[in-house]
Amino acid sequence: MKIYIAQMEVIPGSPEKNFSAIQKFVEEGRRQDADLVVFPEMAVPGYLLSDLWEEDSFVERCLHINEAVCALSNQVDILFGSVAKEKENGENGRPLLYNAAFYASRGEFKTLVDCKGVRKNFLPKTLLPCYREFEETRYFSDLRKLAQTINAPMSEMIAPLQLDGFQLGITICEDGWDSLYKIKPFEILRSKMGAGDLLINISCSPYTQGKDRARDRVFGTHAKHAGIPLLYVNAVGSQNNGKNIYAFEGDSSVYDAAGKSIFSLPLFEEHGTLVHFEKGIVRVDEAESPRTTGIAEVHQALVYMIRKNLARFGIQKMVIGASGGIDSAVSAALYAEALGAENVFLVNMPTRFNSHTTRNAAKDLADNLGCPYMVAPIESVANALCESLAEDSFVRNPVKMDVSGIHYENLQARLRSAAFLATIASVVGAGFTCNGNKSEVAVGYCTLYGDTSGVMCALGDLWKTQVYELAEEINSRRSVIPQASIDIPASAELSSAQNVDEGKGDPIIYPYHDKLFSFWMERWQRNSIADSEALLNKGFDVYCEQLGVDKEFFKSKFHTKEEVMDDMRRWWHRYKGIALAKRIQMPPILSVSRRAFGFDFRESQLG
Amino acid sequence: MKIYIAQMEVIPGSPEKNFSAIQKFVEEGRRQDADLVVFPEMAVPGYLLSDLWEEDSFVERCLHINEAVCALSNQVDILFGSVAKEKENGENGRPLLYNAAFYASRGEFKTLVDCKGVRKNFLPKTLLPCYREFEETRYFSDLRKLAQTINAPMSEMIAPLQLDGFQLGITICEDGWDSLYKIKPFEILRSKMGAGDLLINISCSPYTQGKDRARDRVFGTHAKHAGIPLLYVNAVGSQNNGKNIYAFEGDSSVYDAAGKSIFSLPLFEEHGTLVHFEKGIVRVDEAESPRTTGIAEVHQALVYMIRKNLARFGIQKMVIGASGGIDSAVSAALYAEALGAENVFLVNMPTRFNSHTTRNAAKDLADNLGCPYMVAPIESVANALCESLAEDSFVRNPVKMDVSGIHYENLQARLRSAAFLATIASVVGAGFTCNGNKSEVAVGYCTLYGDTSGVMCALGDLWKTQVYELAEEINSRRSVIPQASIDIPASAELSSAQNVDEGKGDPIIYPYHDKLFSFWMERWQRNSIADSEALLNKGFDVYCEQLGVDKEFFKSKFHTKEEVMDDMRRWWHRYKGIALAKRIQMPPILSVSRRAFGFDFRESQLG
Repeated sequence: MKIYIAQMEVIPGSPEKNFSAIQKFVEEGRRQDADLVVFPEMAVPGYLLSDLWEEDSFVERCLHINEAVCALSNQVDILFGSVAKEKENGENGRPLLYNAAFYASRGEFKTLVDCKGVRKNFLPKTLLPCYREFEETRYFSDLRKLAQTINAPMSEMIAPLQLDGFQLGITICEDGWDSLYKIKPFEILRSKMGAGDLLINISCSPYTQGKDRARDRVFGTHAKHAGIPLLYVNAVGSQNNGKNIYAFEGDSSVYDAAGKSIFSLPLFEEHGTLVHFEKGIVRVDEAESPRTTGIAEVHQALVYMIRKNLARFGIQKMVIGASGGIDSAVSAALYAEALGAENVFLVNMPTRFNSHTTRNAAKDLADNLGCPYMVAPIESVANALCESLAEDSFVRNPVKMDVSGIHYENLQARLRSAAFLATIASVVGAGFTCNGNKSEVAVGYCTLYGDTSGVMCALGDLWKTQVYELAEEINSRRSVIPQASIDIPASAELSSAQNVDEGKGDPIIYPYHDKLFSFWMERWQRNSIADSEALLNKGFDVYCEQLGVDKEFFKSKFHTKEEVMDDMRRWWHRYKGIALAKRIQMPPILSVSRRAFGFDFRESQLG
Repeated sequence: MKIYIAQMEVIPGSPEKNFSAIQKFVEEGRRQDADLVVFPEMAVPGYLLSDLWEEDSFVERCLHINEAVCALSNQVDILFGSVAKEKENGENGRPLLYNAAFYASRGEFKTLVDCKGVRKNFLPKTLLPCYREFEETRYFSDLRKLAQTINAPMSEMIAPLQLDGFQLGITICEDGWDSLYKIKPFEILRSKMGAGDLLINISCSPYTQGKDRARDRVFGTHAKHAGIPLLYVNAVGSQNNGKNIYAFEGDSSVYDAAGKSIFSLPLFEEHGTLVHFEKGIVRVDEAESPRTTGIAEVHQALVYMIRKNLARFGIQKMVIGASGGIDSAVSAALYAEALGAENVFLVNMPTRFNSHTTRNAAKDLADNLGCPYMVAPIESVANALCESLAEDSFVRNPVKMDVSGIHYENLQARLRSAAFLATIASVVGAGFTCNGNKSEVAVGYCTLYGDTSGVMCALGDLWKTQVYELAEEINSRRSVIPQASIDIPASAELSSAQNVDEGKGDPIIYPYHDKLFSFWMERWQRNSIADSEALLNKGFDVYCEQLGVDKEFFKSKFHTKEEVMDDMRRWWHRYKGIALAKRIQMPPILSVSRRAFGFDFRESQLG
């Protein structure tokens, strides 16, 4: 038996476009003489669609395409994921939808549920994730609920599909990530299957750093425990929920009966491969392409998302405010890679507070990348505004309009983005970028309508320390990011108190605070300031170990527990207060971590 | 028996503050010799908390307060809503939490679930809403799942509490809104209860226009069908999910056994009242205060939310860009009512495109309200920027920086908000407002970092036609909104093509488009452009009737189906495209309709 894995790019909300891709892969599978072509989860509708699921006409379009895919199965079987809809409404009076798998053969759907007289020509997903960006229970029912309706035990509901000569155990994405769930679909399947059979998991699973290793562990273990090979078929592409943009990296894999990954499809690329399967043995003829890991993989994910989403938004050119600092330099390198250097317009917007060091670094960056470059000093405009305001005053409450200090700092940031960059982008016919990083986003060390603005925020899910790592990675391929941008202290250069040539800069101690903020918002078990304090009470050493901070470095910055707590309270207060208010109005964040700000991390303003 | 209804303000995320309020109401109930004090749903933790539920230390604080409330029950019984937590983790490996009711008496919790050997000293909610802003299934398990775990039918799980001499049927919020659900808690209760008993629903139910009438229908019917009086106890206050701000209006009500509302507590006010209950008869001595309805009720809700949320954010003063148009005038009136006119700073920021008509209207508005007022012309700054840019050019790709047309239009809007208003607000020590309305938000007829900016958007859930209604309502109390602002055509005045004195203005035909956009996004059954077209195919008359548009007006604007479709496609495209991109970065919207943009209406950017 020959199975063709179709690692297709799923376009969210475009069933007709996805049908074209499906058609193409089916033809290729047939050309290679495959018996079965396997597509990812939700290959027809797409996965991250938000409340589009409420639009009945959209669901009907998907159901129509499901039938069209079925009609392609005359010469080759097709296993694919899509939405299924029951005739009757669900328990809450809304249309009853499933995230489901369909198996089409000779122009007909096979029965995938057959229990207590209930037969379905699709298989509903069993485990619906409802955390982070996932909210499947908002839209779908599941196999467990169906089992409850007909009063059937899950052990009878879940059964392998009988094919000529062997059994196929089908699961959908989360069904395989069962370690914390009480119901374990793979355990039920393996109790009914044996050597000579095959397991399959179809997924539409967003990329997060290091997930490929977790995935090998999870699905390798399922194969090994069952003593049955397993095919994992994931989508590529980029999808979003409004506030977060995700990459889908593919990484579809073939595991042998011992649980070893014998072949993985390339990351972030549409690709098909033929798997030879016979009597419990899997084989792939194609040679695996070399893989990236660590920060290089993040780099690949970011460039992929920039390319896919700007194309989706119809944007070919981007304007970037190049300050000479590290964030804008790394952003520029990523956008130049995605769009071509000639389409990335760098603008340096100095005032008297910007050092020659950073001005030169900005110019060097443009020269290194080969980007269009402009210097647009903003001070005359800032001064025109201050002078104009100084002449005015409020009737009934004269307030002296003295725009200095923090007022003038924020004004610079807002003029740069909302006045200069937005206008330049408008004239050039481009978008402009938000260059913020996760550390700034966490505590609101940024200016609303200033550096928080833009079409998307490429580095918003990378801690500042990771931005430096990414800079090194980029330079290791081709040295484009000026050394000065790496060497100077991180600084907003909005006042003389932030003079980089005098070694002055941001109030965030990144090697420590990045870990502290991560402790608060990235861990599976969410921590509060009370948890940090409890840890600190165990002493500096335990505290540093648990956070992953270098002890000597930490002790060079803090001397007493009170100092640490004072500092911590200040950041906690910002994280839960002003920073949150800014996050609500931030552009979409390219998300690569296990917890990204945005709709992945839902927050109420609680004051 | 005497029952004290405690319509308390629930502060989200502040169990300790809520405890103080509970304590105060318990004391008052005791003083009035009540036998039982009843609090709203989630009275301890608050309701709209987003992912704060993941913070274990927060949940522990709530559990601790639950015990403290229990300890108050020595002299009076207490029924209240809060979070309950099981010792073991839930089916997905996360802590198992319930949205639950607790009944404390003589310092101990009563058993509220007692079935098949399983006893719980709390009652989990049965029906968990998971649509619009509601996402309870993300955080909580429910009574149905508990029933499934112990294999008990719902008819045995749901049972009234036995008290001395009568039975009490307790439900939580959505449990009462059962019309579309298959499980109907009130039906089960009434099969076990009879004359002489009492039904209670505790709620934390956000305000939407006209919900009070729906509520009377729903709970009145439950009481009538059962032939048993019903107490409905709702919270007041304001809570949010980040993107949407909601009011909780209270409106706690007493229904007699015939289903008639015999008393309702005041809207948007902490209040307690004593209900005399004996042998199936309810009586309240207090006289009901007069009620507002319709647009006056919306007015009340908006001012309430402004007041509550600005206090929460620590903001005492607001700056408003007063254009002389209707939106900023209505905003100013609302903020002046909430904060006091002396704390609302109006700024008129004209260019050559602003008519004397609107300039005068802005000044009249300030005079009528008694607000501090300033005229800050922005043209010199806009010109300084254009001249400064004209001198610069991109190395490697000279682009002529000709800032005219649409570029100059948007620049005006952005300078007004991001440069002038933000700076003035910063100097004054205030926030500034976003004055956008729902019509603009729907199709992105607004400028990002321009008029979309601000601390919150007070009119973002009102169609333009409703803004005019609200203006009339405000003027009917005290004439503060200048007639000119009402009479001129709605216009952005960003170019000579938008000259109000020449009758020119916005491209949106509000009396028609408001209804069209509402048809797309506000109806329970979500409609697409395909649904609009299907309706239009039935003829102009049917189309207008279904949308609620005046036929003669419509026919004066459109003559052929093709004209309607061309227009419709243009707006649909904006609604799903550029407008969505802007909504993602909008400030929180004060939400009053049955569907508000924001997190109530989740959207992916699908291109």
